[in-house]
Amino acid sequence: MEDRAMTPFVEELGREIGAEKIRTDDAVRASFSRTTAPDGTRPLGVATPASREDVRAIVRAAARHRVALFPISRGKNWGYGDACAPQPDNLIVDLSGMNRIIEVNAELAYAVIEPGVTQGELVSHLERERLPLILDTTGAGPDASIVGNVLERGSGHTPYGDHFATSCNYEIVLPDGSIIQTGFGSYPNARAQNVYKYGIGPTLDGLFTQSNLGIVTRMTVWLMAAPENFAMFIVAFREKASLGPFMEAVRRLRLAGSIRSTMHCFNRGRLLAGATRFPWDKADGRQALEVAHPDVYQAMCEQFGLPEWGATGSIHGSAAEVRATGKTIRAALKSVPGLERIVVLGERAFATSQTLARWLRPVAGSSLLLKRLDSIRLGRDMLQGRPSWETLKGSHWRARTAPASSQTDPNETGSGLAWIAPILPLTASAMSEVSELAETAFHRYGFEYQATFTAFSERAAIAVLSISFDNASGDERDRARNCQGELLDGLLARGYVPYRGPVSVMRPIWKVAPEYWRGVGSIKACMDPGGVIAPGRYIPEATAGVQT
Amino acid sequence: MEDRAMTPFVEELGREIGAEKIRTDDAVRASFSRTTAPDGTRPLGVATPASREDVRAIVRAAARHRVALFPISRGKNWGYGDACAPQPDNLIVDLSGMNRIIEVNAELAYAVIEPGVTQGELVSHLERERLPLILDTTGAGPDASIVGNVLERGSGHTPYGDHFATSCNYEIVLPDGSIIQTGFGSYPNARAQNVYKYGIGPTLDGLFTQSNLGIVTRMTVWLMAAPENFAMFIVAFREKASLGPFMEAVRRLRLAGSIRSTMHCFNRGRLLAGATRFPWDKADGRQALEVAHPDVYQAMCEQFGLPEWGATGSIHGSAAEVRATGKTIRAALKSVPGLERIVVLGERAFATSQTLARWLRPVAGSSLLLKRLDSIRLGRDMLQGRPSWETLKGSHWRARTAPASSQTDPNETGSGLAWIAPILPLTASAMSEVSELAETAFHRYGFEYQATFTAFSERAAIAVLSISFDNASGDERDRARNCQGELLDGLLARGYVPYRGPVSVMRPIWKVAPEYWRGVGSIKACMDPGGVIAPGRYIPEATAGVQT
Repeated sequence: MEDRAMTPFVEELGREIGAEKIRTDDAVRASFSRTTAPDGTRPLGVATPASREDVRAIVRAAARHRVALFPISRGKNWGYGDACAPQPDNLIVDLSGMNRIIEVNAELAYAVIEPGVTQGELVSHLERERLPLILDTTGAGPDASIVGNVLERGSGHTPYGDHFATSCNYEIVLPDGSIIQTGFGSYPNARAQNVYKYGIGPTLDGLFTQSNLGIVTRMTVWLMAAPENFAMFIVAFREKASLGPFMEAVRRLRLAGSIRSTMHCFNRGRLLAGATRFPWDKADGRQALEVAHPDVYQAMCEQFGLPEWGATGSIHGSAAEVRATGKTIRAALKSVPGLERIVVLGERAFATSQTLARWLRPVAGSSLLLKRLDSIRLGRDMLQGRPSWETLKGSHWRARTAPASSQTDPNETGSGLAWIAPILPLTASAMSEVSELAETAFHRYGFEYQATFTAFSERAAIAVLSISFDNASGDERDRARNCQGELLDGLLARGYVPYRGPVSVMRPIWKVAPEYWRGVGSIKACMDPGGVIAPGRYIPEATAGVQT
Repeated sequence: MEDRAMTPFVEELGREIGAEKIRTDDAVRASFSRTTAPDGTRPLGVATPASREDVRAIVRAAARHRVALFPISRGKNWGYGDACAPQPDNLIVDLSGMNRIIEVNAELAYAVIEPGVTQGELVSHLERERLPLILDTTGAGPDASIVGNVLERGSGHTPYGDHFATSCNYEIVLPDGSIIQTGFGSYPNARAQNVYKYGIGPTLDGLFTQSNLGIVTRMTVWLMAAPENFAMFIVAFREKASLGPFMEAVRRLRLAGSIRSTMHCFNRGRLLAGATRFPWDKADGRQALEVAHPDVYQAMCEQFGLPEWGATGSIHGSAAEVRATGKTIRAALKSVPGLERIVVLGERAFATSQTLARWLRPVAGSSLLLKRLDSIRLGRDMLQGRPSWETLKGSHWRARTAPASSQTDPNETGSGLAWIAPILPLTASAMSEVSELAETAFHRYGFEYQATFTAFSERAAIAVLSISFDNASGDERDRARNCQGELLDGLLARGYVPYRGPVSVMRPIWKVAPEYWRGVGSIKACMDPGGVIAPGRYIPEATAGVQT
C-alpha cells in the first residue's frame, strides 16, 4: 500500500484519536524498520494510542480501511525479529505510551499493568514503595516490556520463570473492536480476577499468546514474595560433555522440588560474548573464531576465566530451609563429571564478596577475581528480579561499532541477532544432540557457537542458539539467514521444535504440521475475517500461509 | 428426538463401528439418567467407542444426522452433575472402554493415557511396575477418570494439585471429525511433546477444558517423583474464626515456597459426613442438625473427636529439607488463634502410629484414638497419591439407605450432592464472607453446613460448599435446588464466581457476563456450527444461551 492510499485512513483516525498520535513520515518508517534480524519489514507508519479506547478506534478504523495492524509493546523482542511485522506496510500500534501501573497488591503479590510498562519501571516502583515483592525479569534489559514478554511466553530466572503461567486477567481488544477480559475479569466486581487464571468455561489466555487474535491492553502479573532468606549457587564445568549429566542432575533436583527456579546454563561462547567483543583486529570473521584462531579464542577465555559451561541458580526460604537445600544441591551436583567448582553463596558470603570487590577495584580494575565478583553480582541481580543492561552486552559481539554505553540499542551498533530456541526433553541425549547439531551449523557458516540451555521446568529445557553477526555486512547477513534456516530444518527433522520465533522461523514450522496449522488458521479466519491484526504473525494466512 | 428418529442414525453408525457399541434401550437410558444432582436428563442412548477412529465415526455420523453427543470419560463427576448432559436426548459417548495406558516414562515422570483410565488403574500400574512416581489424585474414588478430571480443571492434594497445569499433549477429535494434538503433538517425531505444554503459536489446551469444542481421546499427565523423604502435617482448630487467619498463614507459607501442595481445610460438618451418616432416628432432616439438635450434633462430633476445622498437608524433599520445612511450617502455624493441635509426622512417626493402630484394633475397635490413626492413614494416602473409596463416604450423608460397602455408587443409596465451588482470593475476609454466606443459606434451607476450603495456589482458594441431601425425597430435592440457586446468586452478587459446575450453575453465570459469553459462544458457533458436541455444556448456545 502506498502512502497516498493511507491518507483517508490517517485523516479519519486522526480525527478520532488525535492527529499527533499517528505518524507516517519516512523518518518514523525507517526507524521502525530497523532490526537486528537478517531481514526486516518497513511499516506504513506508527500509531501511539494513549488508552484502550484509542486502541479500539484504531482497530475499527483499520477494519473499515483494510489496513493491517502490528501491535508492539516496547518492540524489544531481541533475537526474534524485534519490532518488525511479518509483512511490510502494516501500521505499527506502539503501545509504549500505555504504561500505567494500575495496581500493586502486596498481600496477594500481583501487579496490574499496561503493555508499555517496562521491567525497569515496575521494579523501580516496587523499590520506591519498599514492597517486599520480586518481579521475574528477563535478560532483555530494563526497557523491555513485561506484557510483551508474557505474550511471547518468555522465561526468566526465578521460580516465577514461566511468564505465561504467572499471568492472568488479560484485557483484550478483539479484531471487531469489542473487549473481553479473560479468567474472571469479565464478571462484575470479580474478587478473584487477579489471583486465579482459568475462570470458568474454556480458559482463553493461551489463545492470545503468540497469536494475532487480539491486542492485549492490560494484564495481571504475579510477583514473588521476597524470601526470608536467599542463596545463589554458581556452577562451572571444564568439559563440553558435562552439559548432559549436569542437566540430568538438575532435572532430578527440580523433580524433587529442591530447585524451583528456571535455570540457565551458558556455554563458553555465550559467556565470552557477555564479557567482550569479537577481536576484529585479529580475525576477519569469515570463520568461527574458535575454529580459525583457537589460540586467540583460548587466550580470551582465559583472560575472563570462562569455563566450558557456567550456570547460576537460587534457593529461597527460611534460613534453615536454605541451608538444607544448599546442602542437597551441592551433594547432587558434586558428582557431575567435569565439575570445576560449585559455590553456594548465602547472604553473608555475598556481602563479603562485594566488599572485597569494592576494595579490589581501585588496585586491580581488570583482575580475574574482580571480574568473577562482578559477574556474581550480575547473576544475583537477575535471580532477585533486578533487570540489567549488562545482559544485553552480548548482543554487540560482532558489531563493528563499539556501543557508546551499556544502554546502547543493538540496532545502533549494527548488531545482528538471529536466535533459534528449540524445546528439548530434559535428558542428556537431547542436550548433546542439539548442542552438536547447532555447533556444527554455526561453524559451517562461520559463526562462534553461542548457546544457553535453560531448565525451564521439571521436564523440559529451552536451548537458545544465538547467531551473533555483523548486520552491517551483507555477507554476514546472508550467512546468518542460511545458518538459521539450515539449523532449523535439521532440528525439525529430528523433532525439536522452537517455542518462539519470527516469521522466518515459523515458515518451516507451518510446513511440517500443515493440518494443525490449517486448524489454527480457521480459528483466525473466524475471529478476524478481515485479517486486521498482524497477518502472518505466528498463524499462517488462510489463503497462502501453509503453502509459503 | 424420538427413538424412531434415531433408527437410521443408529443403523448407519452400527454398520460403521459395530452394532454392539450402541445401546438405546430403556434400561441403558434409565441407567445413564441417574444422578446425585437435584435434576438430571435422559439421554437417547449410549455409544461405547473402542478407539479414536470409532469416536471420529460417531462425530461424523452425528453431524450428518443432527444428533447431539455428550462425551463422558467415566461419568463420576460427583456433585457437578455426574454423567448427565445439559439437555435431554443427547447420545452419551462413553469413553470408559478406551482405557489404555499408552506410555509411562519414569525418567521424565509422565504418563500418556486414554480417557477411560481411572485413578485406581494408573496407580496400580505404577505400583505393579515399582515405578517411583506419584499420581495426584482426587477424592472422587479409584473408579474416577483422570482425563475427565483434568478436563474439568479439578484439583488434588499434592504439589501437582493443579490438574490442568500438569497435563499436556491433548489428542482431540474436533466437531468436523478431524484430529489435532495440542502443544507439540502435531509435529512429526516431536521430542518434547510430553514434557512441554505450550507448543509454538497460540496454546490451545485451555480451549478444550470445560468446553464443548472437541472430544479429547488421549493426553499426557505429569507425575510427581516419589520424594526421598516425606512428612505430613495435621492441623486442627477449635474455633470457627480460625479459618481466615489459618488460610492467611498458609498463603504466606505458599508464597514463601514452604508449602507447595494444594491444601484442603475441612469444616466440622464435612468431617462429620466423612465419619458417619445423618441420624434419621433422631431428626427429620427438615432443619440442619446443628440448628435443630445442637446437642445430638455436638455429641456426634465429640464421638469422632472432630475439631471446628481440620487440615492436612505434605512436605517433600531430602531428610534435611523435610526437617527444616517442618519446623518453618510449625512455627508459622503455631500463632494462629484457636489452634487445637499441629502434628508433623515424619516417616518413622507414621509407621509407629500405624503399628499402634494394629495393636489397638482388636481391643478398642471404635476408640477415638483409633479413629484418629485411621484418618491419618487416609490423609497420608491422598497426600501420596493413593485414591481411596473412603473419601466418597461423605456423599451418603443424608441417604436413607445405608451403602452396602465403601464402594457403593452414591446413586444406589439415593445420595443427593449439589456443590457450589467459588474461587476466593486467599484472604481472611474473603474466607469469612463466603463461609458465613454459605452457612446462612444452608441453614435457611435446612441443610448441615459442609464445606472445604482449599488453598489451590499461592493466591487463590477454592471453597467447595457441599449440599448433601436425600435425593429420594422431592422436598429435599426442591430445597437443595433452591439453596444452590440462592447461594449462587448471593456469591455472584458479591463477585465470587465458581470455577466449575453443571448447567444449573452456569445459567446464572452466563447472565452476569453476557458480553463475555457472547464472545465465547461465537467461537463455538465457528468451530461446531452444527452444535454436534454437548450443546449447552459450559458454553451457552448462540441462539438462546445467554438469554436463558
